[in-house]
Amino acid sequence: MDPVRIVEVKEAVLADNDTAAGNNRKKLSGQRTVLINLMGSPGAGKTSTLLQLIRRLKDEFRIGVMEADVDSDVDARTVAAAGVRAIQLHTAGLCHMDADMTRRGLEAFGTEGLDLIFLENIGNLVCPAEFEVGADLRMMILSVPEGDDKPLKYPLMFTVSDVMLINKIDTAPIFDFDIEAASERARALNPDIRIFPVSAESGEGFDALAAWLAGFVRERRGER
Amino acid sequence: MDPVRIVEVKEAVLADNDTAAGNNRKKLSGQRTVLINLMGSPGAGKTSTLLQLIRRLKDEFRIGVMEADVDSDVDARTVAAAGVRAIQLHTAGLCHMDADMTRRGLEAFGTEGLDLIFLENIGNLVCPAEFEVGADLRMMILSVPEGDDKPLKYPLMFTVSDVMLINKIDTAPIFDFDIEAASERARALNPDIRIFPVSAESGEGFDALAAWLAGFVRERRGER
Repeated sequence: MDPVRIVEVKEAVLADNDTAAGNNRKKLSGQRTVLINLMGSPGAGKTSTLLQLIRRLKDEFRIGVMEADVDSDVDARTVAAAGVRAIQLHTAGLCHMDADMTRRGLEAFGTEGLDLIFLENIGNLVCPAEFEVGADLRMMILSVPEGDDKPLKYPLMFTVSDVMLINKIDTAPIFDFDIEAASERARALNPDIRIFPVSAESGEGFDALAAWLAGFVRERRGER
Repeated sequence: MDPVRIVEVKEAVLADNDTAAGNNRKKLSGQRTVLINLMGSPGAGKTSTLLQLIRRLKDEFRIGVMEADVDSDVDARTVAAAGVRAIQLHTAGLCHMDADMTRRGLEAFGTEGLDLIFLENIGNLVCPAEFEVGADLRMMILSVPEGDDKPLKYPLMFTVSDVMLINKIDTAPIFDFDIEAASERARALNPDIRIFPVSAESGEGFDALAAWLAGFVRERRGER
């Protein structure tokens, strides 16, 4: 008789995911394509942030955008209208992108000839943080109306991200948001996190962010 | 030889969850306790909404609050300071409350003698919508800074909720949020959804919401 077999579903899934993420990274690296995983709550300003960055980066880099959504096509249309290649990925209700879904997206997209790909993840401050997709950079957005206590309540996202944007800074006085306190809370979790206060509405802060990002992409592509 | 066995993990989990949710409902019903599942994105204003409602309802009802968080204790402390019983539930990283976690919370809380329990779910517009916990009422919050397009992008939450609060309405002009458009998009998914525009900051709209909620709780308790 067989002993009872216990399958640790979540750990197996995460280990498989790490392997798939490594494969994505290897493939993109071979093409000298840089992948950025953009994460944040619903309405944090992910799409508006992409529009600000595309405007500043599209003359230097060939950019593609993969828009992940549980259901709609709104964001891919918006981004395509900004003059870059865009594709919509539907997760069929799933709350995050994983590495295999990203692979399928990259294959459907056809990524050769692209220097820089943004993956706009599902609007969610919890689940996307758990799943590596094979990105060169994890960039998250905390928007001012969400509150400066969010690093305390959703710590994993702040721990795994390389870059944190504090968006909608023009509304900081209205929402009594303390940019310094939010930054300190994020740094307590992740001392290396780079923080850029921005407003995707007015464009404030995006010249500095785009300049840093361009340097990052150049360096990554140079190494390959 | 055995044929390959395929386990539909997600469906099995959801079927088990529905059974557990039914058990929660039965148990609470026997005690004449009403359970409200409060959901919304991080920073939508769930805790502030509870504070406004507690102030208006605590003289009539014995209220308890279960605060679910992936990690912190911030909200339970805030709510307890408002003079009601509160307990903190940690999901250990999980992105939603399910029915069995709710059962464990209810047991640890000790719910006899309570008329009304609020479960503040994890800040997430995707996953909590998938899991019944056995509540009498599902109440969700869409906050103005998130944008009036959110019903298009996260349809399940709007489909399964009985009540939608549009919070932070005082900031509608700043964020170019169209309350009518958001309401129509929600009603297209769920014609029966009740919509209350509120501001948990100023208290606007909460007298109407609390009056409706008090009627709902009285009626439910009367049926039992």
